[in-house]
Amino acid sequence: MGQYVAPLRDMQFVLHELLKVEDEFKQLPKHAEIDKDIINQVLEEGGKFTSQVLFPLNHSGDREGCQLDKETHVVKTPTGFKEAYQQYVEAGWPALSCDPEFGGQGLPIVINNSFYEMLNSSNQAWTMYPGLSHGAYECLHEHGTPEQKAMYLPKLVSGEWTGTMCLTEPHCGTDLGLLRTKAEPQADGSYKITGGKIFISAGEHEMSSNILHLVLARLPEAPSGTKGISLFLVPKYIPNADGSVGPRNNIFCGAIEEKMGIHGNSTCQMNLDGATGWLIGEPNKGLNAMFVMMNAARLGVGMQSLGLTEVAYQNAVTYAKDRLQMRSLTGPKAPEKAADPIIVHPDVRRMLLTARAYAEGGRAFSSYVALQIDRELNHPDEQVRKDAADEVALLTPIIKAFLTDNGWIATSEAMQVYGGHGFISEWGMEQYVRDARINMIYEGTNTIQSLDLLGRKILMDNGAKLRKFGDKVKAFVEENGTNEALSEFITPLGDIGDKVGKLTMEIGMKAFQNPDEVGAAAVPYLRVVGHMVFAYFFAQMAKIALEKQDSGDNFYKAKLATARFYFARLLPETAMLIRQARAGSANLMALEADLF
Amino acid sequence: MGQYVAPLRDMQFVLHELLKVEDEFKQLPKHAEIDKDIINQVLEEGGKFTSQVLFPLNHSGDREGCQLDKETHVVKTPTGFKEAYQQYVEAGWPALSCDPEFGGQGLPIVINNSFYEMLNSSNQAWTMYPGLSHGAYECLHEHGTPEQKAMYLPKLVSGEWTGTMCLTEPHCGTDLGLLRTKAEPQADGSYKITGGKIFISAGEHEMSSNILHLVLARLPEAPSGTKGISLFLVPKYIPNADGSVGPRNNIFCGAIEEKMGIHGNSTCQMNLDGATGWLIGEPNKGLNAMFVMMNAARLGVGMQSLGLTEVAYQNAVTYAKDRLQMRSLTGPKAPEKAADPIIVHPDVRRMLLTARAYAEGGRAFSSYVALQIDRELNHPDEQVRKDAADEVALLTPIIKAFLTDNGWIATSEAMQVYGGHGFISEWGMEQYVRDARINMIYEGTNTIQSLDLLGRKILMDNGAKLRKFGDKVKAFVEENGTNEALSEFITPLGDIGDKVGKLTMEIGMKAFQNPDEVGAAAVPYLRVVGHMVFAYFFAQMAKIALEKQDSGDNFYKAKLATARFYFARLLPETAMLIRQARAGSANLMALEADLF
Repeated sequence: MGQYVAPLRDMQFVLHELLKVEDEFKQLPKHAEIDKDIINQVLEEGGKFTSQVLFPLNHSGDREGCQLDKETHVVKTPTGFKEAYQQYVEAGWPALSCDPEFGGQGLPIVINNSFYEMLNSSNQAWTMYPGLSHGAYECLHEHGTPEQKAMYLPKLVSGEWTGTMCLTEPHCGTDLGLLRTKAEPQADGSYKITGGKIFISAGEHEMSSNILHLVLARLPEAPSGTKGISLFLVPKYIPNADGSVGPRNNIFCGAIEEKMGIHGNSTCQMNLDGATGWLIGEPNKGLNAMFVMMNAARLGVGMQSLGLTEVAYQNAVTYAKDRLQMRSLTGPKAPEKAADPIIVHPDVRRMLLTARAYAEGGRAFSSYVALQIDRELNHPDEQVRKDAADEVALLTPIIKAFLTDNGWIATSEAMQVYGGHGFISEWGMEQYVRDARINMIYEGTNTIQSLDLLGRKILMDNGAKLRKFGDKVKAFVEENGTNEALSEFITPLGDIGDKVGKLTMEIGMKAFQNPDEVGAAAVPYLRVVGHMVFAYFFAQMAKIALEKQDSGDNFYKAKLATARFYFARLLPETAMLIRQARAGSANLMALEADLF
Repeated sequence: MGQYVAPLRDMQFVLHELLKVEDEFKQLPKHAEIDKDIINQVLEEGGKFTSQVLFPLNHSGDREGCQLDKETHVVKTPTGFKEAYQQYVEAGWPALSCDPEFGGQGLPIVINNSFYEMLNSSNQAWTMYPGLSHGAYECLHEHGTPEQKAMYLPKLVSGEWTGTMCLTEPHCGTDLGLLRTKAEPQADGSYKITGGKIFISAGEHEMSSNILHLVLARLPEAPSGTKGISLFLVPKYIPNADGSVGPRNNIFCGAIEEKMGIHGNSTCQMNLDGATGWLIGEPNKGLNAMFVMMNAARLGVGMQSLGLTEVAYQNAVTYAKDRLQMRSLTGPKAPEKAADPIIVHPDVRRMLLTARAYAEGGRAFSSYVALQIDRELNHPDEQVRKDAADEVALLTPIIKAFLTDNGWIATSEAMQVYGGHGFISEWGMEQYVRDARINMIYEGTNTIQSLDLLGRKILMDNGAKLRKFGDKVKAFVEENGTNEALSEFITPLGDIGDKVGKLTMEIGMKAFQNPDEVGAAAVPYLRVVGHMVFAYFFAQMAKIALEKQDSGDNFYKAKLATARFYFARLLPETAMLIRQARAGSANLMALEADLF
């Protein structure tokens, strides 16, 4: 039933050799003491926990799924999930990057990020139970009152309680302005909340002793649309003043969705019937408060697909080395066997390397973004913090959409390596494909991410944030332009950088005339920018690998081969994407709706 | 739970306006009497049967799946499947394009092909029960003895009995040379066959009163490899001399696979323990005989994905017109509603049009190939028959791989239109994606199809077959080169035609030096040729639509819009693919297997 071994060496390469996080942490007073040894130890322990405890529950969790007892409203999660969660809590994992003031270990986000990759490689459906707690933690940490923080944060940090996001309703997902759930103010300062929410991941379970639902709802006479939405904390059990669990609140799971994948996670319809809740942040500014959680969740979704990409790759490689089928076209490679292992075939390697390159590129990119979050949160210089925040804002939709599209491609290619066995459940590969599919949809579909990138993050500030990132790319190109050994990477990197600049200008001009041009270009545009980012990181990684290729350490040889594959085989997708992004809106808008 | 309406108008357009099949049939003595009315009547009846009888069983069949009773070895198919099969048999559908000598209706293959699209749109898993019967029919029709034909063909034609293909064994799928199942000759001319087969679609069920298994096995002292494989007919029940069903044969279903999709079909492990069988064709030439069935199956798999593409498109369009979410960026389009229907959004249209264009292109292309089969089988002129056979040989791997890759893309885009609801089983869209996935794998993975196209069909005859098809493309370009209204289609068609020629030459030269170059280029190469073929058919369809666009019939307006979308948005994939096909093998082969 497959395998997962945390890619510690590659994670360490990214953190220590590419991003040099130890040096970066020295500039962040809060993390100045964090050194390589601490980081490596956390990664090692994380690798053990995820491979040994969570991975063995992944396939069985998929087969078993979750069951709702409609009388008691209790959801039974797959066998072993609850016990694994206890081990997770006992080992202190929920606290990893949380504020020591509330019981956290105060480690940098970038370390937590690597751990999240492992969690998702080993078991995405399980990871979604604690996964949303961290977003709830961040949201309360930023927008909660001191009393709310004191009451709830320690419980989230310890993992004793978990969190959810309750946004979607049957008639509104993307368009939250349409939401109808109502909140009635009570004399004691609380609210009675009534409405129906759907698609609530980890909405009900018995893994933790309480669940904190963060619920979007409307106050009486609130303005219509998104400007009339407020955020409420609705605990499953209303806590007593001493923090112990009190009476059951009137928020219940009405049904569990049958779905394509992530069967181990309970995707719940939640009914609120005068449930008690408390306002978080300001009235009518709920979306603003929720965005903290949504941004965290978007990065988290990117990490889900990165995790799936890695584990699918690992398994496909093992299969490709074991499975004997046909001879190499250049003559037998294993003449003593009945046939050659299929890893001799060029197209099998193409499939494997596609997954490998998307894993390595995604790891470098997402770790970089996580490090920028640490800088945004902790750098003493305000300008540095602002620059980091701008970069995070720019790159978040790319992490979400590019990594999840890549995860879909990579898991599907990895499954294809297995031939017919890939389609059979017991081999475990088809689950990765099914699980990967949701990541392109939830927390804002990839179309929404693309519109966020192009419309909001780029065109709304006339490309300023993109230019700042582009300047980093240019600087790297300039710095290394005369390094002949690097030219195979630098030349296409400079080229894609120029093309992104030009394409952005073009679309910006067209958008002035016709706003539909943004929608028509956004999806291919995001992938073009994603490739520019990947090319930037692969070029940097290739530079390090070239410097160390004679070290006798094959790791660098492999890194270089993967980078070459990326530039030869994956970056050329931009030739298609740029044409599509330029194709304009007329070919999309011409057909009248009736004629579809 | 969705809908399916057979796209009769578009099928009629393809058959009557694009391919002018009535005129073609006049040249085929066997079909000279087949006119438009007959064709349209068959299509209409087919549309009713598939929408009304099969489509309602598609989702329930997926949820219910098949169950094996391990004691009796009986497989229970989903509720309603057996009854639907009876209706199918009673209506005479299995006989549609079969030889009247054996009870068939003798209609052209191209009509049967349209019906198969409908069958697969409405229920792929169900269609696979009778689906392999037709291949078995063709195989026996070509390679059976007169006695075998007399005994078995009428039963296959009536649908009383069904057929299977038993090729794969646990250790060999692609590499049939490794197969181990043994056949021992008996004194009465029969054989005792022993071995284990896996992945046998419709391998066991009670829908028909007998199942004819076509089994590959080795005779004693047969040469090793593919030259020692023979084909045997192994009936589930050994027929009595009068054609009635006799004793149960020793071939049993040992297990049903749990798999990603096509749950309604029983994918069986089959155990043969001295099962009685009869040789079909010559000893040791079993693969040759089986190829008749495999080629039919490969076209059939292409049709499966075309069917899924169409039905996924239809449902996504309905959803996109119903679902209200956000306002158009160019101002409200349905101001009286709370939000606009999502079909106003450019990227929703991009997703819909992708599925639509792949459906329309696939329909034109596959109908053309089916018509060539009719010409191959029935044209009085031997050279015409040979030319048609060459084209069918060339185009079969493209039908299989290009249409199934497109089906994967299209069903996934159609599912994405639904947002979160797409992932939920009850909406029915995720099933299409899961079902579509197998089509890229079975009957020869798409990598194998690509190698077949580039290695066997193109390079082995120095491109002669491809040139013949290319000459048709060139002739169309020449003929219409001065038609200014068509230039938006003709120019890119001529361009991709030239590029295919050049790319083929390049790869051919490189392959002389290094056979791995074929494997390194084959998969992107096949898609490039697939796009050339689609561009050729879209240009022809656009020409007809342009001529009739002022007819007041909106069908032509829509056809033109779809063709424009295809050229603007899908054909540009070739810019990526050509770069990938040219990238060579070094970037794939450099990494030593140990370093993966």
